Amino acid sequence: MKTEQLFFGAAYYDEYMPYDRIDTDMEMMKKAGFNVIRIAESTWSTWEPEEGLFDFTHLDRMLDASERHGMNVIIGTPTYAIPYWLSQKADDMLVLTKQGQEIYGRRQNMDITHPVYLKYAERIIRKMLEHIQGRKTVIGFQIDNETKPYGNYGKRAQKMFAEYLKEKFGTVDALNKEFGFNYWSNRVDSFDNLPDVRGTINASYGAEYEKFQRTLVDKFFAWQADIIKEYKTDAQFLTQNFDFDWRNHSYGLQPEVDQFSAAKPLTIAGVDIYHPSADDLTGKEIAFCGAIGRAIKEGENYLVLETDAQGNPGWLPFPGQLRLQAYSHLGSGANSVMYWHWHSLHNAIETYWKGVLSHDLKENSIYKEASVIGNEWKRYGSRLKNLKKHAEAAILLDNNSLTGMNWFPHAGNLAYNDVVRWLYDCLYEKNIECDVVFAESEHLEDYKLLLVPALYSAPESLLKRLSAYVENGGNLIVTFKSGFSNEYLTVYHDEQPHLLSKCLGIHYDEFTVPSRPVSVKSGNITLPENAYLSNWMELVTCDTAKALANYDHKFWGEYSAVTLNKFGKGNAMYIGCYLSKETLSAFLDEMLRQSGISLPDYQYPVIRKEGINDAGEQVIYLYNYSSDEQTIIWDYDNAEALFHDTKISRGDSIMLKPWDVQIFISVCQSSI
Amino acid sequence: MKTEQLFFGAAYYDEYMPYDRIDTDMEMMKKAGFNVIRIAESTWSTWEPEEGLFDFTHLDRMLDASERHGMNVIIGTPTYAIPYWLSQKADDMLVLTKQGQEIYGRRQNMDITHPVYLKYAERIIRKMLEHIQGRKTVIGFQIDNETKPYGNYGKRAQKMFAEYLKEKFGTVDALNKEFGFNYWSNRVDSFDNLPDVRGTINASYGAEYEKFQRTLVDKFFAWQADIIKEYKTDAQFLTQNFDFDWRNHSYGLQPEVDQFSAAKPLTIAGVDIYHPSADDLTGKEIAFCGAIGRAIKEGENYLVLETDAQGNPGWLPFPGQLRLQAYSHLGSGANSVMYWHWHSLHNAIETYWKGVLSHDLKENSIYKEASVIGNEWKRYGSRLKNLKKHAEAAILLDNNSLTGMNWFPHAGNLAYNDVVRWLYDCLYEKNIECDVVFAESEHLEDYKLLLVPALYSAPESLLKRLSAYVENGGNLIVTFKSGFSNEYLTVYHDEQPHLLSKCLGIHYDEFTVPSRPVSVKSGNITLPENAYLSNWMELVTCDTAKALANYDHKFWGEYSAVTLNKFGKGNAMYIGCYLSKETLSAFLDEMLRQSGISLPDYQYPVIRKEGINDAGEQVIYLYNYSSDEQTIIWDYDNAEALFHDTKISRGDSIMLKPWDVQIFISVCQSSI
Amino acid sequence: MKTEQLFFGAAYYDEYMPYDRIDTDMEMMKKAGFNVIRIAESTWSTWEPEEGLFDFTHLDRMLDASERHGMNVIIGTPTYAIPYWLSQKADDMLVLTKQGQEIYGRRQNMDITHPVYLKYAERIIRKMLEHIQGRKTVIGFQIDNETKPYGNYGKRAQKMFAEYLKEKFGTVDALNKEFGFNYWSNRVDSFDNLPDVRGTINASYGAEYEKFQRTLVDKFFAWQADIIKEYKTDAQFLTQNFDFDWRNHSYGLQPEVDQFSAAKPLTIAGVDIYHPSADDLTGKEIAFCGAIGRAIKEGENYLVLETDAQGNPGWLPFPGQLRLQAYSHLGSGANSVMYWHWHSLHNAIETYWKGVLSHDLKENSIYKEASVIGNEWKRYGSRLKNLKKHAEAAILLDNNSLTGMNWFPHAGNLAYNDVVRWLYDCLYEKNIECDVVFAESEHLEDYKLLLVPALYSAPESLLKRLSAYVENGGNLIVTFKSGFSNEYLTVYHDEQPHLLSKCLGIHYDEFTVPSRPVSVKSGNITLPENAYLSNWMELVTCDTAKALANYDHKFWGEYSAVTLNKFGKGNAMYIGCYLSKETLSAFLDEMLRQSGISLPDYQYPVIRKEGINDAGEQVIYLYNYSSDEQTIIWDYDNAEALFHDTKISRGDSIMLKPWDVQIFISVCQSSI
Repeated sequence: MKTEQLFFGAAYYDEYMPYDRIDTDMEMMKKAGFNVIRIAESTWSTWEPEEGLFDFTHLDRMLDASERHGMNVIIGTPTYAIPYWLSQKADDMLVLTKQGQEIYGRRQNMDITHPVYLKYAERIIRKMLEHIQGRKTVIGFQIDNETKPYGNYGKRAQKMFAEYLKEKFGTVDALNKEFGFNYWSNRVDSFDNLPDVRGTINASYGAEYEKFQRTLVDKFFAWQADIIKEYKTDAQFLTQNFDFDWRNHSYGLQPEVDQFSAAKPLTIAGVDIYHPSADDLTGKEIAFCGAIGRAIKEGENYLVLETDAQGNPGWLPFPGQLRLQAYSHLGSGANSVMYWHWHSLHNAIETYWKGVLSHDLKENSIYKEASVIGNEWKRYGSRLKNLKKHAEAAILLDNNSLTGMNWFPHAGNLAYNDVVRWLYDCLYEKNIECDVVFAESEHLEDYKLLLVPALYSAPESLLKRLSAYVENGGNLIVTFKSGFSNEYLTVYHDEQPHLLSKCLGIHYDEFTVPSRPVSVKSGNITLPENAYLSNWMELVTCDTAKALANYDHKFWGEYSAVTLNKFGKGNAMYIGCYLSKETLSAFLDEMLRQSGISLPDYQYPVIRKEGINDAGEQVIYLYNYSSDEQTIIWDYDNAEALFHDTKISRGDSIMLKPWDVQIFISVCQSSI
Repeated sequence: MKTEQLFFGAAYYDEYMPYDRIDTDMEMMKKAGFNVIRIAESTWSTWEPEEGLFDFTHLDRMLDASERHGMNVIIGTPTYAIPYWLSQKADDMLVLTKQGQEIYGRRQNMDITHPVYLKYAERIIRKMLEHIQGRKTVIGFQIDNETKPYGNYGKRAQKMFAEYLKEKFGTVDALNKEFGFNYWSNRVDSFDNLPDVRGTINASYGAEYEKFQRTLVDKFFAWQADIIKEYKTDAQFLTQNFDFDWRNHSYGLQPEVDQFSAAKPLTIAGVDIYHPSADDLTGKEIAFCGAIGRAIKEGENYLVLETDAQGNPGWLPFPGQLRLQAYSHLGSGANSVMYWHWHSLHNAIETYWKGVLSHDLKENSIYKEASVIGNEWKRYGSRLKNLKKHAEAAILLDNNSLTGMNWFPHAGNLAYNDVVRWLYDCLYEKNIECDVVFAESEHLEDYKLLLVPALYSAPESLLKRLSAYVENGGNLIVTFKSGFSNEYLTVYHDEQPHLLSKCLGIHYDEFTVPSRPVSVKSGNITLPENAYLSNWMELVTCDTAKALANYDHKFWGEYSAVTLNKFGKGNAMYIGCYLSKETLSAFLDEMLRQSGISLPDYQYPVIRKEGINDAGEQVIYLYNYSSDEQTIIWDYDNAEALFHDTKISRGDSIMLKPWDVQIFISVCQSSI
Repeated sequence: MKTEQLFFGAAYYDEYMPYDRIDTDMEMMKKAGFNVIRIAESTWSTWEPEEGLFDFTHLDRMLDASERHGMNVIIGTPTYAIPYWLSQKADDMLVLTKQGQEIYGRRQNMDITHPVYLKYAERIIRKMLEHIQGRKTVIGFQIDNETKPYGNYGKRAQKMFAEYLKEKFGTVDALNKEFGFNYWSNRVDSFDNLPDVRGTINASYGAEYEKFQRTLVDKFFAWQADIIKEYKTDAQFLTQNFDFDWRNHSYGLQPEVDQFSAAKPLTIAGVDIYHPSADDLTGKEIAFCGAIGRAIKEGENYLVLETDAQGNPGWLPFPGQLRLQAYSHLGSGANSVMYWHWHSLHNAIETYWKGVLSHDLKENSIYKEASVIGNEWKRYGSRLKNLKKHAEAAILLDNNSLTGMNWFPHAGNLAYNDVVRWLYDCLYEKNIECDVVFAESEHLEDYKLLLVPALYSAPESLLKRLSAYVENGGNLIVTFKSGFSNEYLTVYHDEQPHLLSKCLGIHYDEFTVPSRPVSVKSGNITLPENAYLSNWMELVTCDTAKALANYDHKFWGEYSAVTLNKFGKGNAMYIGCYLSKETLSAFLDEMLRQSGISLPDYQYPVIRKEGINDAGEQVIYLYNYSSDEQTIIWDYDNAEALFHDTKISRGDSIMLKPWDVQIFISVCQSSI
């Protein structure tokens, strides 16, 4: 979905404020160029302090103020944090997880399939939407927030799962066979009497339950979307705030939600991206999660609904970084930057998750830098919004493989998202922009180069599509652990990697976790001096493929580490081990060359992103993610520097100050 | 309370002995100069082996023997370890903690508010006190032992908490507002229906519960004291064995008890101080916990009721250390050293927590060194007891701030007690004696210098008292994270550090956790070569204060790390970051100079302590906490060496053997 | 028990196969020289998919095929993994452990004392045995698999324990006294009302429960053996698959089973030995666990029922290692090598515990190397089977001491098995073969040298036997922590090490855990340059013993680290501290010299094992556990090289290729 303008703003909670300062806040926001607030998603107990007693005072105050000050508003349904009184309506209102029964306190631990929860949730949503009908400043709605199944292993959910399995398999014999339940005497004799999934040692059973859990989110969104659509206008969008696998910050594909499938009822994708700043700001999380943001609605622009202003302790940005971050989002195709949140909280667990304003609620250095951004966007935003991006390379992501790798964490603690980021980050540092495609995507052919990290669990249909992609001229990189098992984590019982063997021109049946790093040698490719692998190695034999590198090992020197195969009109590279970053880089360079994708002369910490704006102009961002000045040589045709109204020509040198960004507009769309 | 003599002895358990050796033990004790045993606090099941069946055989044996051998006795009530039969009287006799329901086995896990427990506890106390009425050797009583609330989150306790909150706040609206319960939909609608505290993410709610738990100990002591007072004579004292925050040994302020408040019904403070020995003996725990011991009854002498003889594996003292330790306690104002315990146990969990005697119950090297101590005290004790101490510096300790820091552990895992010990230990190594004052103390003005570590949670009244202290001529050091929130952990919503801003002459609103050490530079103070901070830094701006040091940082160089402000007649230093030990030392030197407190020429490992004895003489202890000889120059007037009957004059050099102590008596009370 | 031939084979599960390939598998096996499969121990739910519905299709298929292909079969009773329907028959069918109630899923978590379990188990055993009556290829039966008490702390088991205690102690007073229940008020007043063992802090109570748990396994085996004996022929053996303390691989004495006692109803011992390969293959686990295998039936040969083919990720053997491993088992006295398992699994938790065949079920490098072994055994097996071994040295192992050390883990996390392996591995690297004797063994006198590691818990009778062993001319090495407590973990209350003091000629009462390594010095023995200890040191005083080494310590230099005593006709060495490996080695050399045991000129990585075959010939194995060639000088009389039909004479040099083994047969039985 395209938007009329760039949105710049913050989450706002009048109901959390220590005193009435709503007009002060709105004035401060306007002055800073903010044009949107996001409200209401956490505060059911304020809207309905007692069962059946509705009080929208704070909501009205925020909407009245938004009208007085000309501020756009995104309203979230308040269903992801339930009031205490509601939690008491049923013993199983809160989820039973693998760790035991949840008790009331934190958000996001109710059973989203519970009929009592759903009944009350529907009522508060309808009451709220009725109440705000006709409000002009409301531009869109957010369903719930960072929704997940919350580790629900309760009886109701497990009963639903039994029905799901019955639907899928028909007979218990079929289930016993597919899941290998003969093992350790795990056979079942009836769908009405299945073992508690929490105890299982059968990965097929356990992983299928996680897949089932993800479908609960799909259903929840569809249900809420249907309710909201009864009230919203066509102009008002419908979104969700999707988040990511968390490693003290946003890191990888979200394991608990199939975002591609869950997003179907939405009109625009929304994400929250949190990342470290200060010495640790790299732009990687913004770029990677942004690529997922684009993929959720298959290439459309997305909203950044939450990102850090001051954020967690340790994330306080250096001067310039807040602005760099904002433009990093835009360069990835975001149409908004919205901070979580406007002010800092004076109570409770997120007291130190600081907003734009500190606890003193005054203009501070962060506010001042936000004002720079906001006022630049007022001036330049129309040329930056709705950036249309299409990368030449894409990385294929898959939740079933992520789950499968979790069930079999044998590769020295390498998780699926580690393999994903290993590939993605290497391209990022080379300045090769990379899209994300979900395994369900039908647009693989749009890319010159497709990277497939650890596709552990794959139905044959997907393996065939990958083969066909190469056969038809695509360039494919497949890593270790791909094609190993089917969609139920049943290992394919022919040679590995099953149907991909032919297109890759290789096979293997043995692999190991080396207890010390193993060197890698190549006759074809120039490798870094200390080329090595760790964590995982497969003993790969070439059939039709050419070995690009072998193991430099006394006993396993005959096996290949990396291979390349011509197959049909395309090329397929297999990486059978977890190479050190520098070693991987050399092989990616080779495959980029094979794919006809050119590499810029400069690398990280200078990062380039590009796309086409509404006017059909090419927009090129240059970012400096370092504390030092950087100078690069312009390798495009003539362009115009956005902030300075100066012209630039091929061969000119460009200096970027520490943590600075520059933007260039070129009418010519092709890079060298 | 002053005592007639120094007490030297051990906990004694006739009921644990493998065979009858009570007269052998008493004779060995007497020979070693022991004059007290502490008995009975753990053995309810021996006194009442079945419900209602009382058997004081062992108690009588010990009292009879004490009379035969002229040994003083301290009797503990046996209530901190309940018999199994009592644990079976109610399902909730043992506490429900955050980890779940306790089961029988260890001590200290009953619900000290349980009416059935209290009924039986009262009966055994009365039976025991009736039984020993008139026993002449009993000099005092100990209530229970190391009492705490034991993590009690049971229904009864939570109901009491609801009443406590109702009393305090009157209406749920007031509670909702103060605790910020609007956040994440946590509003409550009735005091009769509050969420289980175990689940809360609201620090105000959770910390207030911990405060409430501490009041349970106050009540428990008052209740037992009232019973005991019905039986005890005026000459018999009443004490409790207070312990400390535990980090494999005594470390810091006890988080679960407000010792100042709990001690009100007592006539004398008692403590147990456990510390490593051998290579790790520093005297720091003895000095720091001793300072708390003095503070509990506001400057009076205290009893060391337990300390290590052989102690835990790894604590076995080197020759000389047991004696050094004993005098370390005396130099801090203790009037007793009592080992836990006389013999070593042959069964159960503390088998390796060894006493004076090893498992063979024979004279060993520890016993022999104890005999040296005991016999010295017989000779010199009258000049060493009731040491009156008053330091020029004091450190302010506060349980609410400790709890607050636990709820917000953001500063790279720095806990409250780490900040306390960071300051205290730095002074200790400089040979600046330092008192402890509790936040409730009314004697701040007695000190030239007051140190306030991480006073995270403080009512405005306390902040005003600190300001007034400076205004009236006091010298104040305040560290980062002070004055940040009120008594309910609600962050003050003006500039930080709230009311202290004026007296400190600074303000800040931003802070961070640097991912790598940050250098510190000063134009005023000579800093060590590698002056740096880690863990936490606040971006401090001087208003009226002078910057003593700034961050040596490319982007944050404008902000101050340490500041000094003249305010009224006094000086106030602010330390806005966690400086390395050597860097902190330089700033403390500066503030000691400002405060007119002089520094001796020698430092740790030579430690000096001093005080005034009953005769008004000044007693000066010199300790050598190292395996090497140390020589220092005497910087006092003429004095007499206690152990050698020699005289010493200013400028004489004094040699201390490894792990040795020397004591000097001077009639002139003033140091240079 | 002697066997007719060497057995070479694998566990086989027709019921786990993805498609029918039973004849293919048998043909592949036969071609590789396999002569046995082990079946049926895990698949109750296949034999009885619903309660009372029996289906032995897969069993019949395997037996039919075994007859067609002339393959021997070992049948396991399927009782260690119960069907889901059986788990639902009673609420307490699965064990309650210290971690809580088990839920269905994994194997080995049922209550093996549960009458309902036992009823159904007996029925399936009888049904299966009836079904296969008369099958000619069945050579033996295995009871259950890796049986243990599974941490059973359920009510039934605890009630049985109360009866066990009553039987043992008669009165609660006796129990209270022996266990020291006076401590912390733990006295009990009735056997009908004992505290839940899970909560206890009394090591005597807790450890006795673990001893009791081990007796449950004895009873379980006796019960199953009685049933099986009703069906089996005299020619069919009866075994169990014993496993070991697990540290990511087989490591030490199994804590949960008294294997010596449990094995009484068996006719032959069986073990599973899992070990790392590749860079980490040392042969130590094979040798150590093999020594236990021999000890279980007091010197008889044993079966290796499971060992790794490809095994866990990271264990993939280098070329040559699979063969080296197989001969390592034979050299230790095994009469079989059976892989777990034939194929690799396509589902569930052991998907990556790979068998001989990989998931593709084709001939691979592992299969090919197995074929070399199998075909060599067809040719040479008759001269290698039933190897009779008797070492000159033995190490005494004891489960009660292991449990005791777990309850008192004070020595810097040194566990009992660490002390065991510290001694054993040191001898192994010197090429001194070493038997295991259990504390109950009556054959101590068979050995020149007896090593006693950390015999923490020992009845006086055992200590007397050790003294008598020395007095009668034996050579004894005793380490720290031996003889410290009796069979109930009650510490002996005279001088340490109690009754051993006299034979060792030493005593001590103090010990410590040094916070840094402590040097060791010797006037008698040449020590390595950096001779030191860590973790634990006892302050030993020599009575009649001679100090071989003292602590090189400023304050504890007077105490001995290692002592040697002449006692009667023998010698007794005491090692009072945990010496570094090289330091220990020097003292073991001294004691080997004293014992008249000669050391070969070559050490690890070249390892020698020897024994006498059925024909009375001496068989000598030489192994190279390294990636480099090794050359040694032959130090025996004339011998014949088994694989090459060449002769070899004293003084000849022998070259071993990387990871190679050579076998020599000599008619002369005495080594130099």
